[in-house]
Amino acid sequence: MRQHELTRADVLTAALPYIQKYHGKTVVVKYGGNAMTSPELKQAVMTDIVLLSLVGVNIVLVHGGGPEITALSSRLGLETKFIDGMRYTDKATVEVAQMVLCGKTNKDLVCSIEMSGGRALGLSGLDGGMIKAKKLEGKADYGYVGEIVKVDPTPVSDALASGYIPVISTVGMDEHGEVYNINADTAVARIASALKVENIIMLTDVKGIMRDQNDESSLIVDASIKQVEELIAEGVVVGGMLPKVRCLCDAVLGGAKKAVIIDGRVPHAILIEMLSDDGAGTLIHE
Amino acid sequence: MRQHELTRADVLTAALPYIQKYHGKTVVVKYGGNAMTSPELKQAVMTDIVLLSLVGVNIVLVHGGGPEITALSSRLGLETKFIDGMRYTDKATVEVAQMVLCGKTNKDLVCSIEMSGGRALGLSGLDGGMIKAKKLEGKADYGYVGEIVKVDPTPVSDALASGYIPVISTVGMDEHGEVYNINADTAVARIASALKVENIIMLTDVKGIMRDQNDESSLIVDASIKQVEELIAEGVVVGGMLPKVRCLCDAVLGGAKKAVIIDGRVPHAILIEMLSDDGAGTLIHE
Amino acid sequence: MRQHELTRADVLTAALPYIQKYHGKTVVVKYGGNAMTSPELKQAVMTDIVLLSLVGVNIVLVHGGGPEITALSSRLGLETKFIDGMRYTDKATVEVAQMVLCGKTNKDLVCSIEMSGGRALGLSGLDGGMIKAKKLEGKADYGYVGEIVKVDPTPVSDALASGYIPVISTVGMDEHGEVYNINADTAVARIASALKVENIIMLTDVKGIMRDQNDESSLIVDASIKQVEELIAEGVVVGGMLPKVRCLCDAVLGGAKKAVIIDGRVPHAILIEMLSDDGAGTLIHE
Amino acid sequence: MRQHELTRADVLTAALPYIQKYHGKTVVVKYGGNAMTSPELKQAVMTDIVLLSLVGVNIVLVHGGGPEITALSSRLGLETKFIDGMRYTDKATVEVAQMVLCGKTNKDLVCSIEMSGGRALGLSGLDGGMIKAKKLEGKADYGYVGEIVKVDPTPVSDALASGYIPVISTVGMDEHGEVYNINADTAVARIASALKVENIIMLTDVKGIMRDQNDESSLIVDASIKQVEELIAEGVVVGGMLPKVRCLCDAVLGGAKKAVIIDGRVPHAILIEMLSDDGAGTLIHE
Amino acid sequence: MRQHELTRADVLTAALPYIQKYHGKTVVVKYGGNAMTSPELKQAVMTDIVLLSLVGVNIVLVHGGGPEITALSSRLGLETKFIDGMRYTDKATVEVAQMVLCGKTNKDLVCSIEMSGGRALGLSGLDGGMIKAKKLEGKADYGYVGEIVKVDPTPVSDALASGYIPVISTVGMDEHGEVYNINADTAVARIASALKVENIIMLTDVKGIMRDQNDESSLIVDASIKQVEELIAEGVVVGGMLPKVRCLCDAVLGGAKKAVIIDGRVPHAILIEMLSDDGAGTLIHE
Amino acid sequence: MRQHELTRADVLTAALPYIQKYHGKTVVVKYGGNAMTSPELKQAVMTDIVLLSLVGVNIVLVHGGGPEITALSSRLGLETKFIDGMRYTDKATVEVAQMVLCGKTNKDLVCSIEMSGGRALGLSGLDGGMIKAKKLEGKADYGYVGEIVKVDPTPVSDALASGYIPVISTVGMDEHGEVYNINADTAVARIASALKVENIIMLTDVKGIMRDQNDESSLIVDASIKQVEELIAEGVVVGGMLPKVRCLCDAVLGGAKKAVIIDGRVPHAILIEMLSDDGAGTLIHE
Repeated sequence: MRQHELTRADVLTAALPYIQKYHGKTVVVKYGGNAMTSPELKQAVMTDIVLLSLVGVNIVLVHGGGPEITALSSRLGLETKFIDGMRYTDKATVEVAQMVLCGKTNKDLVCSIEMSGGRALGLSGLDGGMIKAKKLEGKADYGYVGEIVKVDPTPVSDALASGYIPVISTVGMDEHGEVYNINADTAVARIASALKVENIIMLTDVKGIMRDQNDESSLIVDASIKQVEELIAEGVVVGGMLPKVRCLCDAVLGGAKKAVIIDGRVPHAILIEMLSDDGAGTLIHE
Repeated sequence: MRQHELTRADVLTAALPYIQKYHGKTVVVKYGGNAMTSPELKQAVMTDIVLLSLVGVNIVLVHGGGPEITALSSRLGLETKFIDGMRYTDKATVEVAQMVLCGKTNKDLVCSIEMSGGRALGLSGLDGGMIKAKKLEGKADYGYVGEIVKVDPTPVSDALASGYIPVISTVGMDEHGEVYNINADTAVARIASALKVENIIMLTDVKGIMRDQNDESSLIVDASIKQVEELIAEGVVVGGMLPKVRCLCDAVLGGAKKAVIIDGRVPHAILIEMLSDDGAGTLIHE
Repeated sequence: MRQHELTRADVLTAALPYIQKYHGKTVVVKYGGNAMTSPELKQAVMTDIVLLSLVGVNIVLVHGGGPEITALSSRLGLETKFIDGMRYTDKATVEVAQMVLCGKTNKDLVCSIEMSGGRALGLSGLDGGMIKAKKLEGKADYGYVGEIVKVDPTPVSDALASGYIPVISTVGMDEHGEVYNINADTAVARIASALKVENIIMLTDVKGIMRDQNDESSLIVDASIKQVEELIAEGVVVGGMLPKVRCLCDAVLGGAKKAVIIDGRVPHAILIEMLSDDGAGTLIHE
Repeated sequence: MRQHELTRADVLTAALPYIQKYHGKTVVVKYGGNAMTSPELKQAVMTDIVLLSLVGVNIVLVHGGGPEITALSSRLGLETKFIDGMRYTDKATVEVAQMVLCGKTNKDLVCSIEMSGGRALGLSGLDGGMIKAKKLEGKADYGYVGEIVKVDPTPVSDALASGYIPVISTVGMDEHGEVYNINADTAVARIASALKVENIIMLTDVKGIMRDQNDESSLIVDASIKQVEELIAEGVVVGGMLPKVRCLCDAVLGGAKKAVIIDGRVPHAILIEMLSDDGAGTLIHE
Repeated sequence: MRQHELTRADVLTAALPYIQKYHGKTVVVKYGGNAMTSPELKQAVMTDIVLLSLVGVNIVLVHGGGPEITALSSRLGLETKFIDGMRYTDKATVEVAQMVLCGKTNKDLVCSIEMSGGRALGLSGLDGGMIKAKKLEGKADYGYVGEIVKVDPTPVSDALASGYIPVISTVGMDEHGEVYNINADTAVARIASALKVENIIMLTDVKGIMRDQNDESSLIVDASIKQVEELIAEGVVVGGMLPKVRCLCDAVLGGAKKAVIIDGRVPHAILIEMLSDDGAGTLIHE
Repeated sequence: MRQHELTRADVLTAALPYIQKYHGKTVVVKYGGNAMTSPELKQAVMTDIVLLSLVGVNIVLVHGGGPEITALSSRLGLETKFIDGMRYTDKATVEVAQMVLCGKTNKDLVCSIEMSGGRALGLSGLDGGMIKAKKLEGKADYGYVGEIVKVDPTPVSDALASGYIPVISTVGMDEHGEVYNINADTAVARIASALKVENIIMLTDVKGIMRDQNDESSLIVDASIKQVEELIAEGVVVGGMLPKVRCLCDAVLGGAKKAVIIDGRVPHAILIEMLSDDGAGTLIHE
C-alpha cells in the first residue's frame, strides 16, 4: 500500500511542470466522435475537463452532435437529401439540429460536468449573439447550413470569468433572425482564434495525421502549417481529415498558439496530451 | 406632426415615475399562454422586455412550453398516460421536454430578444446546478416530474451582472444526475424568492382573479395574501388559477415584494402593468 | 381607457431604438433662452433630463444666466459699459456673475432636477480646477471676460461615475486666482470635446439654421462642417447664431460626435430630438 | 543655515505622531468669524487644510456667511425684521443667502484651496439632496429658516473618495422644493454625526470656553459632555457660545469622536490643534 | 508506454475529489525534522507545496530551525545554558536565532520553492508586525524566549492574495522592540487559528500518535479533542509529542477545521495526506 | 509657548509645496554608512521614512551591510582573500552574507520602522524571484559575487500597493538556484529603473561630489549626466564615489527621474533633501 501511495505521489509530481505550463491559460476542446458516444470514454473526458479546470486551466468545450440530429430527424420522418455529396438542411432539419444540439447534447454535457464536480454553463452561438452567421455560399444551395461572419467571444469570457466551464453548441443567427447549423470544426477554429487560446484539442477517432492510414507507426507527431500544406499537397491528408486540418491551421494563423489532433478512443486522451511531455496525436503549430 | 411629437413626449414623461420606481430592481416575468403562441403578442413581449432592460430594470424571463412538448411527443409517437388526472412523464418524455424547453423554446426566445436589440442568455435549471430537484412525491408515481429542493440563483445573478437578460427553462437535476421536468409556475416562485425580486409578472390568458369568471368587471385589482386565502376558501380561485395563485403567494412570503397576474392577451401588457399607475390584472402582496 | 393604454405602450416601444442608440453615451445639453425663463418649458427640460438619465444616458447640463446677472447688476446699480459692441465686465460685475451663476441659477437647477426625481450635483469651472482661463485678448480690454486655456473634465466624469447629473456654471480661474466669466456656448464646446460626447444639444429660441430667417420651412436639417462654412460664407448664418454655430463646429472637430441646434420654445424638445428618427432643428456633423 | 534646516526637520518629525493619529480619519472644520474675514488668517486656514489633506486626513470644510448675506441684503434694500430677537428670513432674503453662500463664499473658498494646491469641490445641502430640511418650528414664524430633517452624507463621501476637499454651504430643501437657510453650527454637527468623524474643529473668535470671559487663563481645556452640562447649568456657557456648545455635544452624542472649540484669531490654529500634544482651545468628548 | 500513460491519467483523476475538497482553502504546513534536513525529502516537500498551490490551495509554510541555530551558536562559541530542562536564550543567542531563521532557513526555502516553479515570499513574525510577543513567563527566567500576545495575519493574507506562497519564520517583537524566539509549533497553531485554515499539517519524525511507541500498527488514525485529552491523561501522548498535540488542539479550538500529524520521513507525505482518502498519520478534529 | 507653536506651524506649512511635489510618487533610499551604524542617525532615518510614507510618498528602502558581514565572517574564522583588489566571496561567505543581510540587517530595519509607527515588509532579491543574477564576469574569478540579469519589481510594487514600506536586501539567485551577493548600489540603480522612481536618495558619508575633496564649499550641487561624465574624465569623481555615481547615472538613464547623493552624517538628511528648496548634496539628472 505504501508502494502504491508513493507511485501516486510520483505521478502527481510528474504532472507539475505541465500544470505550470497551462495554469491560467485558455484551452478549447472540440468534443465528438467515439469519445462522445461511448459512456466510459465520455466519463473520462468529463473527469479530465473538471480536473484541468480545477488546476487553473480555462477549459471551453465545443461539441457537435451529428448522429443525434440524424437519429431524431429519421424518427420524425424527415427526408435526407444530398447535394454535391453534402447534406441539404431544410427548415425542419435545422430546427431539429438546434433542438438536439442546444437542448439535448449541450445540457447532457452540462449535467455530466456538474455530476463530475465542475460548474458548467451551456451556451450556444445564439446566446449573447455569439455567432453571427450567414447562408453558406457554395456551388449549390445547401439550405440552412451557415458560415460564420463574426464570433463575439464575450459570452464565453464572461462565463470563464464567473468560474464556469462553458459548453458551446454551434448554431448561429443571421441579421434576419434565421438560425443556421454551423460545422463544429469551423466554429471551434473561429472561437479559438477569437479567444487567442493556448491550445485547441480536437478529439477524433484516429491517432492523428498518419503518412499511411493503415500504419499507426507512421503518425506525424508535429507539423508546422507549412509542413501541413505540403502533406495536403502530397495527398497525405485526405477525406474527413482534410477540413478538420484546414480549420486548425486557420485557427493557428488566427491567433491560437497551437492545435492538436488526438485520439478520442483512448481514455483520458486530453490529460495525456496536456500533462505529458510527448503529448499525443499530431501537433500543428505556426 | 408637431402634435404627434408632443404626444410622444407626454407619454414618455408620464412613464418617468414608474421607471424611477423600478430602476435597478429585479423583476421576473413568467411567460406562457397566448402571449407565447401569437407572433404579434410575442413580439410585443420581447419589445417590452428589451425596453425595461434598457431603462435599468433587471428583467428575468422564465418560460414554460407545454404545447410544444406535447406536439413533439405526439410526432414521436410517445403515449400520454394520466394518473390521478396528472400527466405521467416517462423517461422518453422528460428527454423530449428537456430538448424542447432548452433547445427550442429557450433559444427561440434568446433569438427574439437579440433581434429586438437586447442581450439574452439562455439558462436552464441544469446550468451551474441552478435547480436541485427530486422526484415529486404524491399520491401516485408521476415519473420524471420533479419538485424543487433548492434554487441557487448565482447563474441568474451572474448573467444579470454581466448585462444579459436571463431566459430560463425550468428543468432540474437530482443528486444522481436524473433530470426532471419542473412546473414553470413553481419554478418562477422559487427563483423569485431566491432573487428577492421587486415584482413577479405572471402572463396568463385571463384578466386576473375575477369574482365571476364571466364578468371581467368583477376583477379583483389588489389582494393581500390573507385576502387571497379567503378567496380560495370562498371558491373564487379555482381550476388552473389555483396552483398559480398559490405559487405567487409562496413567492411573496418567500421574499418577493409583490406579484401580479396579468392578461397576456393584451399587447404590451407588461409595459402597461409596470409603467402606469393602476397597473393591470390582480396584484398580490403581503 | 384600454385604447389609451395601448397608445402609451406604442409610444414607449417606438422610443426603444433611440434609447438603445444613446444608452451609456454622454450627451451635453446647453441650457438657456426661453427654455430657462418659462416655468413650463423649464419643467419639461428637467423631466427630459431625468428621464434620459434613467434610461442610461450620461446627461451633463451646462447653463448660462445672462438675464439674471443683468437684473442683479442693475438692482445693485452697477453701470453697464460697452466696448466695441461687447459688454465690459468690471470686477464688481464678474463677482455678481459668479454669485448668480454658481449660487442662484446652478442651485435652482440642482433643486429642480432633485424635485423631478434625479440626482444632481452643481459644479462650476472653479471646482476641481475644471476650467483654467485667462483674460480674453481682443481688440479692446473687456475686463473679466475669460477665454478657456484648458478644460479638465475629471470633476464631470467623477460626478457621472458616482451617478449624478452634473450641472455646470461657466466661470473659470486663471493662474493668479482671478475669476472670469466664460461664454457658456464656448464652454459647452470645450467641455463636450474634452468628454468626447455623443451629442451636444443646444437649446435656442429659433428653429435652427434657416436659409430665410422669416421662413421656418427653410430650416436646414443637416449640415456637415464644410457645408456650415459655406453657409457662413453665404451670409446665411449671422448675428447671435454665428458664434454658437462656430462653437459647435469646433466641438465636433475637437471630438464630439455631433451637435444639434434645437428650438427650446417647444416643450420636451430634447426628448423629441433624442427619441425620434428625424430629430429636430439643425444637425451639425463632421 | 544648517541650524535652520535641523530645526525644520525636528519640527516635522515632532509632528509625526499626530499625523499618524489622524491619518485616514475624517475631520470637519467649521469655518467662520475672523479666520474668514482676515485675508492673512484665511490664507493660513487654507494652507492648514491643504497640508492636512496631503498628509492623509479627510478634511471637510463647512462655512457660514452671515456678514456677506447682510451686506448684500442691505445693498439690495432688503429690510431686516427681528422676531423674538431672531432674524426673520423672508423669501427675498433666503434667495440672497443661497446666492451668497453657494455662489460667493463657497466658490471663493474653492478658489483659495485650489490656489493653495488642494483639490476642492463646492457642495451645498441642495446637491445630491444632502440636507433635507423643513421650516423651523418655534414660538414665532421665522420665515425661511430651516431645521434639518435628515443629512445624506453620500455627496460628501463621494467627493472624499474621489480625492476632493468638500466645501459645504448650509442650505437645505424641503419636500416641496423650498430652500431654507440652515444655521451652519447645527449643520456641522449633523454632517459630523452622519460621517462619524474623528474630530470637529470649530473656529471661533474666542479662546474657548472660559470660566471668566475676561480671563483667558480660566480656559477650560477639556470637558466631558456631562461637565459641559454642568457648566451650562452654572451659567459659564452663555450667549452665542451656548448654541455652539450644544451643537457640538449633540454631534459627539451622535457619533463624532470629539469636538474642539478653537481660537480662529491665531494663525494656523487648526495645525496647532491637530499636530501638537496639548491641542488648543476647549475639547469636548463623551 | 501506453499502459504507463493510462496509469498516470488514472492517478490524476483519482486525485480529483481531493483537489475539489481543498480548492480555494488555506492550509498551513509546519515544516521541520527529517523532511527539512534530508535533501531528497526537502525537494519532495517543495514539489508538493508548489503542486498544491497550483491546484488552487492557499499554502502557508511555517518553519523552525533549531539544529541550524545550535550549529551556528556553537561555531560562535556561545554557551548553552539549561534552566529547568529548558534552554536559556540570551541576547546573543536570540540574535543568532533571528539571523538563522529569517536569513538562512527562510530564504533557502524561498529559493527552493522558486526553483520548483512556485512564487514564494519570505515573512517573519516581525514583518508588518505579524507576531506581537512578550517574554515567556514561567517558573524561571528563560531569557529571550517569547510567548505570543497577538497574531495579525494581514501580511500572510496579503501575500496569499498577491499569489505568493508565504514562508514564515517564527520570531516576534514586544512593545519595546525586543525580539523573541517563538516556538514554531505554538506559532503555527496561532497563525492557523487567525487564518481559520482548513487544515494544519504538522510534519514530524514519527508516524503519528501511537498507543505503543514501538508498534507502528498501534497508530491512532483519528481523534477528537476529547479523545486526545483522554490519551494525554492515559499517558499515551508524552515527551516531545505532548506540546505539539496541545498546540494542534488549541488551533482546532481556535478556528482551524482540523489538524494532522504526519510522518515527514515518507516522501510526498503532504500529497499523500491531502490527496488520498485515508490520509496519513493522526487526524485531530473537534 | 505661543511663539513656539507659531514657528512649528510655519515650518509645517513651509513643507507643503515639497509634500505636494512628492505625493503619490515612489522614492528609493539607499541606506548605508554612518546613517546605519550610528543609533541616533539611524533613528532619524527611520523617522524620516515613516513621515514621508505617511504624507503619501511610496518609500522603498534598500540596504547594504558590509561591516556586519565582515564582522560575522571574522568571528567564524572565514579567511578574506582579495583578487585584483576585490574581495573574493567563497561559498561560506556568501551564506554568511545572505544570513546577515536578510536575517539581521533587514529584520532590524523592519523592527525599527515598525517601532517608529510605520508598516514595514522585509524583502530580498530572492523573494518572488525579484533579482535574477549570474556570476559576475570580470578579469578574475570573484566567487559568489553576482551581477544582475533582470529585476522583477512586482514584489516591491505588491508590497507598496498593500501599504507596506518595502525593505530590500540585495542578494540574487541564478537559474541553478545559486545565491549571489549583489553590490547594493548597483541593485538600487536597477530597482529604481524598474520602478521608474521619482528620486533615488543615496546616503553616503560625504557631502556629495566635491571638486576638492578637502573643501566642502566646492560641493557640486547639480549636474547633468553629461556634466558628470566630464567630472569623471577630469578626475573629480574618483575612488569609492566613482561606482556609486556610475550607478546613479545608469538609473537616471534607465528611467528614474533623478538621483541625489546626500550626507548621511547629517541627522534627517532625507527630510532636508526632500522637503526644502535647495535640497542637499549633489543632484544628478538627465
